[in-house]
Amino acid sequence: MLSKNVEVFMGCDKGPRFASTMLFGAPFDSTTSYRPGTRFGSAAIRHESYGIESYSPYQDKDLEDANVIDLGDLELCFGDVNKALDRIEERTRHVLHASKRPFMLGGEHLVTLGAFRAVAAMYPDVHIIHFDAHADLRDDYLGAKLSHACVLRRCWELVGDGRIHQFGIRSGDREEFSWGRTHVSTRRFDFEGLEETLKELEGKPVYFTVDLDVMDPSIFPGTGTPEPGGVTFDALRQAVTLVCSRAKVVGCDVNELSPHYDQSGVSTIVACKIVREMLLALQP
Amino acid sequence: MLSKNVEVFMGCDKGPRFASTMLFGAPFDSTTSYRPGTRFGSAAIRHESYGIESYSPYQDKDLEDANVIDLGDLELCFGDVNKALDRIEERTRHVLHASKRPFMLGGEHLVTLGAFRAVAAMYPDVHIIHFDAHADLRDDYLGAKLSHACVLRRCWELVGDGRIHQFGIRSGDREEFSWGRTHVSTRRFDFEGLEETLKELEGKPVYFTVDLDVMDPSIFPGTGTPEPGGVTFDALRQAVTLVCSRAKVVGCDVNELSPHYDQSGVSTIVACKIVREMLLALQP
Amino acid sequence: MLSKNVEVFMGCDKGPRFASTMLFGAPFDSTTSYRPGTRFGSAAIRHESYGIESYSPYQDKDLEDANVIDLGDLELCFGDVNKALDRIEERTRHVLHASKRPFMLGGEHLVTLGAFRAVAAMYPDVHIIHFDAHADLRDDYLGAKLSHACVLRRCWELVGDGRIHQFGIRSGDREEFSWGRTHVSTRRFDFEGLEETLKELEGKPVYFTVDLDVMDPSIFPGTGTPEPGGVTFDALRQAVTLVCSRAKVVGCDVNELSPHYDQSGVSTIVACKIVREMLLALQP
Amino acid sequence: MLSKNVEVFMGCDKGPRFASTMLFGAPFDSTTSYRPGTRFGSAAIRHESYGIESYSPYQDKDLEDANVIDLGDLELCFGDVNKALDRIEERTRHVLHASKRPFMLGGEHLVTLGAFRAVAAMYPDVHIIHFDAHADLRDDYLGAKLSHACVLRRCWELVGDGRIHQFGIRSGDREEFSWGRTHVSTRRFDFEGLEETLKELEGKPVYFTVDLDVMDPSIFPGTGTPEPGGVTFDALRQAVTLVCSRAKVVGCDVNELSPHYDQSGVSTIVACKIVREMLLALQP
Amino acid sequence: MLSKNVEVFMGCDKGPRFASTMLFGAPFDSTTSYRPGTRFGSAAIRHESYGIESYSPYQDKDLEDANVIDLGDLELCFGDVNKALDRIEERTRHVLHASKRPFMLGGEHLVTLGAFRAVAAMYPDVHIIHFDAHADLRDDYLGAKLSHACVLRRCWELVGDGRIHQFGIRSGDREEFSWGRTHVSTRRFDFEGLEETLKELEGKPVYFTVDLDVMDPSIFPGTGTPEPGGVTFDALRQAVTLVCSRAKVVGCDVNELSPHYDQSGVSTIVACKIVREMLLALQP
Amino acid sequence: MLSKNVEVFMGCDKGPRFASTMLFGAPFDSTTSYRPGTRFGSAAIRHESYGIESYSPYQDKDLEDANVIDLGDLELCFGDVNKALDRIEERTRHVLHASKRPFMLGGEHLVTLGAFRAVAAMYPDVHIIHFDAHADLRDDYLGAKLSHACVLRRCWELVGDGRIHQFGIRSGDREEFSWGRTHVSTRRFDFEGLEETLKELEGKPVYFTVDLDVMDPSIFPGTGTPEPGGVTFDALRQAVTLVCSRAKVVGCDVNELSPHYDQSGVSTIVACKIVREMLLALQP
Repeated sequence: MLSKNVEVFMGCDKGPRFASTMLFGAPFDSTTSYRPGTRFGSAAIRHESYGIESYSPYQDKDLEDANVIDLGDLELCFGDVNKALDRIEERTRHVLHASKRPFMLGGEHLVTLGAFRAVAAMYPDVHIIHFDAHADLRDDYLGAKLSHACVLRRCWELVGDGRIHQFGIRSGDREEFSWGRTHVSTRRFDFEGLEETLKELEGKPVYFTVDLDVMDPSIFPGTGTPEPGGVTFDALRQAVTLVCSRAKVVGCDVNELSPHYDQSGVSTIVACKIVREMLLALQP
Repeated sequence: MLSKNVEVFMGCDKGPRFASTMLFGAPFDSTTSYRPGTRFGSAAIRHESYGIESYSPYQDKDLEDANVIDLGDLELCFGDVNKALDRIEERTRHVLHASKRPFMLGGEHLVTLGAFRAVAAMYPDVHIIHFDAHADLRDDYLGAKLSHACVLRRCWELVGDGRIHQFGIRSGDREEFSWGRTHVSTRRFDFEGLEETLKELEGKPVYFTVDLDVMDPSIFPGTGTPEPGGVTFDALRQAVTLVCSRAKVVGCDVNELSPHYDQSGVSTIVACKIVREMLLALQP
Repeated sequence: MLSKNVEVFMGCDKGPRFASTMLFGAPFDSTTSYRPGTRFGSAAIRHESYGIESYSPYQDKDLEDANVIDLGDLELCFGDVNKALDRIEERTRHVLHASKRPFMLGGEHLVTLGAFRAVAAMYPDVHIIHFDAHADLRDDYLGAKLSHACVLRRCWELVGDGRIHQFGIRSGDREEFSWGRTHVSTRRFDFEGLEETLKELEGKPVYFTVDLDVMDPSIFPGTGTPEPGGVTFDALRQAVTLVCSRAKVVGCDVNELSPHYDQSGVSTIVACKIVREMLLALQP
Repeated sequence: MLSKNVEVFMGCDKGPRFASTMLFGAPFDSTTSYRPGTRFGSAAIRHESYGIESYSPYQDKDLEDANVIDLGDLELCFGDVNKALDRIEERTRHVLHASKRPFMLGGEHLVTLGAFRAVAAMYPDVHIIHFDAHADLRDDYLGAKLSHACVLRRCWELVGDGRIHQFGIRSGDREEFSWGRTHVSTRRFDFEGLEETLKELEGKPVYFTVDLDVMDPSIFPGTGTPEPGGVTFDALRQAVTLVCSRAKVVGCDVNELSPHYDQSGVSTIVACKIVREMLLALQP
Repeated sequence: MLSKNVEVFMGCDKGPRFASTMLFGAPFDSTTSYRPGTRFGSAAIRHESYGIESYSPYQDKDLEDANVIDLGDLELCFGDVNKALDRIEERTRHVLHASKRPFMLGGEHLVTLGAFRAVAAMYPDVHIIHFDAHADLRDDYLGAKLSHACVLRRCWELVGDGRIHQFGIRSGDREEFSWGRTHVSTRRFDFEGLEETLKELEGKPVYFTVDLDVMDPSIFPGTGTPEPGGVTFDALRQAVTLVCSRAKVVGCDVNELSPHYDQSGVSTIVACKIVREMLLALQP
Repeated sequence: MLSKNVEVFMGCDKGPRFASTMLFGAPFDSTTSYRPGTRFGSAAIRHESYGIESYSPYQDKDLEDANVIDLGDLELCFGDVNKALDRIEERTRHVLHASKRPFMLGGEHLVTLGAFRAVAAMYPDVHIIHFDAHADLRDDYLGAKLSHACVLRRCWELVGDGRIHQFGIRSGDREEFSWGRTHVSTRRFDFEGLEETLKELEGKPVYFTVDLDVMDPSIFPGTGTPEPGGVTFDALRQAVTLVCSRAKVVGCDVNELSPHYDQSGVSTIVACKIVREMLLALQP
């Protein structure tokens, strides 16, 4: 067939009508504080997904059977944060209005705010499960309210206390940790208590945001702010599988892959496998 | 629009009916003798083409106006050379039968043989213009007849003496140079005589094959067999523009980008610009 | 002496009172359209300057004798373009008010706008000499007015027609080149006509902005938007020496080094030498 | 002494008469499906072996005392799989006929087939112990029977059911896992059960093939198909020591190091240490 | 403020009078046996320290409150080992005479000898706690007495038997291990017994030297002689915290970061965090 | 043949009796002032020489016909400069006493001193032709007399005024250039005057030392102290061919390749080709 090239995340080629999950990329990194480059994350994940298998021996499921479509990357304006967030919010709203589950690939963590605005508008009682090395609870970063270091604080403003459940946190300034104690639930360093949280949230809509830097940089060096002392790939794989198969996930994202910082390509492959396991676990 | 992601070389998104040139990738490198990795070439060119402009100040033309479609990459079998060449020949034949001009992105130089078989079948009087650092005229390489070091010799077997016009050659073994003297026309080191050759070939069908390693590795390090002492980017840009605007090019290819060997990404951008200038010069 | 570590560009350690030129870094890259990372440029230039000699055999001058102080890098807010530009403008104004010449190290090219605002306020009749691969004359980039692709257009708004003198331009969209024809003076590809321009501008205040990507990526791969077909190091060295020794330079900048994209470190050394030659040529 | 340069894996310089183990390289990667480059593996292991000590504190043994000779790399033809396998089989046969143990360094995993053909011809009752991330049990890969993804299937055709004992497998397509259940013994993810297997195989000839990608890519990124979720270096070190000291190893190989994908060089050092520990454990 | 640029390890900007710990770099690597480059270690640690937070959630302490000054790097002569060691000894003596604690950043491990000479002169009863992958107990290396492979042997000559307490050792030649048994205390592979050692040394002056290659190269590839099989970041973090908070540390160093061998930058960040945790634990 | 692996520079495998030129490596870099790593140069040149052809179309000669033996690398002691130089001198003397021409591959430039001592002892009237970016005429570097920055000064001490003929020099401190004016002959920036120098030196013994950094870092980034503004590969190729075919070269060296700084491998290939052209031109 002599037609235009279609390129999707492995196996995510179902027609828009049949898909229940819609994947899209949000290549944006203008507020990254340390090392930029996550703008290349979503395309790298799509492109390198062919380096892994569509079948998971962990779940005994295959992406060939999954109802997912990959819509490609948004075109976002670097340097204009509001425009970029609006564009992400709009796309997420379209997906939600089509009764599909949005699954966004970052980009830096701030992109979560765009998607979450649309999700919170449709599900006012939504909770957030947040995996990350960083608390991301600053009120501002060098004066900027819209920074990847503040993204969960901005989300909190939309839903209030008791709705954010953080795991794996191991970095932040003194005030973030202190403020967090009274407003969000923070599990430091690992995923202990995740099962309990999932029980609590049973039946409630959940937005699930995974900052891949929750993993140790030994296995995931390709990120903007690597934090030694993180969880293993297997720990994260099990945790995301748990959330995606147990919680009522109405939207989710995976972010902070900065592929150029890992010449070996391993970080991208790691991201691909986490995405694969999440997509498979989301399948009924 | 919530539809499957389409990814093409910048501006090469015309419908198959309206396109006059059809771009496709041949990601193959199994016979590469020194450093493999050209299999990643065509996808890198497609992906990074957005790093340059669609408008050329050299030709004052814009790819937005060009009638080109990008069909994407073939799926080729590594390790089975015959199968891979057959697949390339078949694709080229389809394009020719649709009355379009095939424009192939390698891959290693052996892929030229697949495309040229189809071209020579349709145009028995075809000539080859060949830009390269290497003569590629060996009869075999360690016993293998199908090797990127032998590709022009295999093409010669299809058309005979006096049909191959090489430029820029600066590497080969003693026998290649010696054999070449009586069978092909070889200009060493640069493009001198190209205008004369083009005059000679006026009105005759031409297959144009560009091994990007004809350039000096200072500007094009991302290749399998870098050969210091090559031509500049500007010299190549002018030469390909000349060929594509003057000769009756019935098929062409650009090959031997091995992007992983150039962490700076410059080699890929160089390839993108050469492809852009060729596509623009091919436009009537 | 057991005191806090001082770190400056080689030889730029004169006291603030005695210095006539003040060097400072503007580590910002939030609007970069293709590949970010110029935020690391100024610090890399400072740090690696010790890899070259303070003495120039080209000019037979030594930085040890130059009256320059290095003030270090500004702390700029990623993601908030206006705040960053204000901060740069403020610093430039302070330097100008102290009767010193500001010499800014980028960062992406947009930082020029911040410095130029302060310069144009003090010298309303100022001209700009602009070395670049890119015209940077877009009215907006994906809707954003403050983008590195628009910086000279924004500068034009401050001073009007006939004040901007571009050299080396080899990339842009069709409209930029077309608009430029009636508003600025553009020399494509090289520095021809630079002497004439300098004669014209004799005695007039000049702001000199050097986008290092005017050089060919063979010698300067470490940049966000490499454009093959550029000038050589020697051509640029001679041109900047000419401008700095002949024109009445009231402010200048050197930008767009993105060091992480050149693992060999050569791009940073190239930037260091260009800065050295400029600083020496600026010495009376 | 003014004689030709001899280069061997550290300590493997015993005369051919006295050596009991013969090391040789099989630099071949033409069928690699994802990222090629294992052709550089054996030479890198030889060259970098001087970065580690010849003494192992784990086993309290020293390579200086080991009876090993390093024969260097075979010259293999890229692009002609059958020729390459024949050449490997021939070399292995020579070693076996000299009553020595062949120890081959890959190259991609397909090279195992060449060596195993010679081994199985001499020891028809031979078993295979196979450490790998991938099952390698496909019947074909995109139509090719001779692919690194099919190598254990090809070996199975030589010896039949119940002879292949896999450990560490964590990737494959659905059919491989399904087929494997009735034909080979597969331990997923780790080395549990290895001691039992060794007991079973006591006294029987064993061919031992180690695909280094069985390790987690955090410690071994330099490979063609990295699979997150693998075993640690220490787990592999202990397991290979166990096999080499307990089983009757009549031949073995270590493969799939692709050194260019690990700029840090760590993967090569890891491979060197695994080879050292195996060589030491093989010493009586 | 228009003054010369001051650059220090994050938060280490206290005035020399108020500081209790003085940080300085010893960029030297002339005796490195395998891969040089640790000369860039101290500057990289200083420069990249801004990529982590000053606050530690592990210790709930903040570097902003720590009494530390960073004096910058010594200028050391490559190729003249004695001159370099003298210069380091002199600097250490100055710090000690100012009643401050010297905290040196290497450089290769031999720099420890320079600092330890000054420390041992002031504290003749000093013990050494030594974390390392390598025993460093050779009497000479290819005839040289002053080599990083001999540094602990040279230190032993200053203080004698029973004073050196090694942990994590997993590499050396046969004689080092054998000699070590009767002269120093060596814990192989990990930190078991550290608490007991700290109890023994209670109240006694301790020099603490941390060779970062004690960590596994999965998390710390950026070093001259990577040794697979090392401790995790968390294990080292806990162990250094223990030593720095419990022992009477009169001087310490952290060495063997060779940043260019880790393009991802993770190794440098790892070093920064270890230094941060040590500085915080040293605070009363 | 089951014998120990022999590894030589391509084609340099003639028996010691028949060889007229003896190649050997001097892997040493302890005095390198900026970026070390040339210790890996000679082995890289040997290893990668198989990436080029043995036949030169420039000279129409083939290394297969050349009478050269490659003796491999010396084992040199890092950190002990005198020992290393003695070892080099001894090896050179052995080669000279066997009536062969020594051809040394560095290593840093200081290794020239070791070889030149032996050459000057045998040929007291020897001249030096020196290609380099750096004058290397300092009396000392930070107090060290034996530094790569002083190597030609040390050579001068052996032979006196009028014997050293430098070409291509473009970097040094003020004093070097000044001192040089009265003691050596220095051509700055290029090779102008080389023919005249060769005429002058006709019949006189010449030691020829090539610091590869005389080339522009665009084509030779893999070196310790890259200096933009150098000569092209072709200019150097022609110049070395001229010297080797015209002068009475009694010894020579090629140095300052630091391969790890050029991930693309091009610098090593450049070095290989320069060595090939020199070896061929030295053949009668």
